[in-house]
Amino acid sequence: MPPASSTHQPDEKRLSDDLRSAVSTVLEDFLHDQSAVLREVSVDCAPVLDAIAALLAGGKRLRPAFCYWGFHGTADGLSDEGVVTAAAALELFQAAALIHDDVMDDSDTRRGQPAVHRRFEALHRDSGWDGSSARFGLAGAVLAGDLCLSWSDELFSRSRLPADAMARGRQVFNTMRTQLMGGQYLDMLEQASSTQRGAAGAVDRARRVLTFKSAKYSIEHPLLLGGSLAGASTDLLADYSRFGLALGEAFQLRDDVLGVFGDPAETGKPAGDDLREGKRTVLVGLAVQSATPAQAAELERLLGAPDLDAAGVQTLRTILTETGALAGVEELIVQQVDVACATLDAAELTTTARAALHELVVAATSRRS
Amino acid sequence: MPPASSTHQPDEKRLSDDLRSAVSTVLEDFLHDQSAVLREVSVDCAPVLDAIAALLAGGKRLRPAFCYWGFHGTADGLSDEGVVTAAAALELFQAAALIHDDVMDDSDTRRGQPAVHRRFEALHRDSGWDGSSARFGLAGAVLAGDLCLSWSDELFSRSRLPADAMARGRQVFNTMRTQLMGGQYLDMLEQASSTQRGAAGAVDRARRVLTFKSAKYSIEHPLLLGGSLAGASTDLLADYSRFGLALGEAFQLRDDVLGVFGDPAETGKPAGDDLREGKRTVLVGLAVQSATPAQAAELERLLGAPDLDAAGVQTLRTILTETGALAGVEELIVQQVDVACATLDAAELTTTARAALHELVVAATSRRS
Repeated sequence: MPPASSTHQPDEKRLSDDLRSAVSTVLEDFLHDQSAVLREVSVDCAPVLDAIAALLAGGKRLRPAFCYWGFHGTADGLSDEGVVTAAAALELFQAAALIHDDVMDDSDTRRGQPAVHRRFEALHRDSGWDGSSARFGLAGAVLAGDLCLSWSDELFSRSRLPADAMARGRQVFNTMRTQLMGGQYLDMLEQASSTQRGAAGAVDRARRVLTFKSAKYSIEHPLLLGGSLAGASTDLLADYSRFGLALGEAFQLRDDVLGVFGDPAETGKPAGDDLREGKRTVLVGLAVQSATPAQAAELERLLGAPDLDAAGVQTLRTILTETGALAGVEELIVQQVDVACATLDAAELTTTARAALHELVVAATSRRS
Repeated sequence: MPPASSTHQPDEKRLSDDLRSAVSTVLEDFLHDQSAVLREVSVDCAPVLDAIAALLAGGKRLRPAFCYWGFHGTADGLSDEGVVTAAAALELFQAAALIHDDVMDDSDTRRGQPAVHRRFEALHRDSGWDGSSARFGLAGAVLAGDLCLSWSDELFSRSRLPADAMARGRQVFNTMRTQLMGGQYLDMLEQASSTQRGAAGAVDRARRVLTFKSAKYSIEHPLLLGGSLAGASTDLLADYSRFGLALGEAFQLRDDVLGVFGDPAETGKPAGDDLREGKRTVLVGLAVQSATPAQAAELERLLGAPDLDAAGVQTLRTILTETGALAGVEELIVQQVDVACATLDAAELTTTARAALHELVVAATSRRS
């Protein structure tokens, strides 16, 4: 890939496409190496690798993009081969998180394909093997996620950046992993205990989950990883945090809206899945806090009902709209995008990175999938 | 800890105790650091840390011991602070494997305590939260295992050994992780498809699972990790492999025997659990291959039956004994122990390491838990 900054202004669109394909190449080469390691165990391990490769192929490479531009915000002219490897490692980590998340939520689909545990379930059923197909599916997905988790670290270590850069990067990588998992635990805890904890703090609690499960993980940490690898100044890293947390919140709020109101053909997830799972999003929190008693009763009855049907989904959509929750979330998105853009404009970083990050703001918050 | 070799011959027993307590201290300090990272997410994350700490406390520190003595087989007089950290990382990796293994097998107990998913299940039930306790338990355990997996790598990176030593060690660490997970997949595949694949190759297939799921992971790789960190010669590493694979096989065969014939009060696992799960061990493979038609029918009927009762366990024990499978396994253990000891005696390594490894042979194969 060309260095991010040169005498004439490069085209960010072309650079984004180049980055996506560079990340995909790194991932394909890495999986190729791992297939040899697994083949030593047995050729029968092939389905595990196939499942991981299929999932990885569908990624939007959002986190790698933030890592890459976090690096190029300051590393004017530095070679970026190493950072592309580190960025690709984030995709493997994301794959691990998605595979295990789908196991935990018992979801059917991911990125428009069957979830990994459903793939193994189908393999078991179609092969006519002994025992429970569901249990085989679960076990296969737990192992596939564990492999991705180990591999993300192995790929990160291959980045071949100077030792001090790697040590700084590893620190961000470590915090990211632990806090994502903490955030996921908080999320499941909130889903389980929100009735008990009551409506009063619902929005605050949902925003806390969002911060750790999504904003830090999807945007702030990838940016900080790139910046740390490049040796960015404390000031720039602080700007990355401010920008990343604001945009990360907007990004997740958009995700929450899409999860309820999005078109399944575009999101790749069935309509109402988030509602059926009983996800305690900010959107839901706002509705809970301004619901009439009748609306509150409906929310409690329908949210998280495993057999929620299309009519139930429509009722919840109406409540989320009529309570003003949807409008409230859209307003929050605008506010956070404003903070992100203002931070970006004031930060001292390369022109190319600023332009690329502005494009990513649009991509992360105006998307329909 | 004192260096392994000094002018007068050190007492291996004392060194083993020192090592165990040094590993425990490293783990406790590390968990203490991580509790601060998780507290930033929320104080509500405490149960996750508690579950991990309780599991870690019960470890026999077998893998750390092999790593440590693999290091001291050659690193005469080298400071061993770094290798104790790397060795402790193996305990975190093992914790991850156990937590996820118990989820996959839906086991109730581990190391004499409730399995981690059962702990979270109980927390959910006792708190009177919404939704399914079983699902909350599963999700909590998936996350706790993921944390241990990430942390094992983070702790390994803290070893502060020279960069070339770390690079060599990391390679072993990576192969170990991928091949263990491949071996686990092979194990579940064998459990599911053994009826279809037939009796003919049952012992060979079980030995293959054993090699990758246990022998390499529990003994060969820890030894190679220590040896690689110390810069051991190719010859010594080859001896470690030969020794490790032989002892590793004996170790797992002993485990398989204990899983069926062991005293639950000593093993910490309910009697017959392995049989109820339908584990396709070498012990079972030998029985399948020499069973009369009547015994074969009983084996097929009872093995893996979720409702297997005490009488069924007794019937299977009788078949495993009368087919000569138990005697066959005991003979294999003796053979492999002989190979391990002969390799050890012929290898060029420090006197202290040789003595300590001889003690570990006894500990790994004559144990009752």
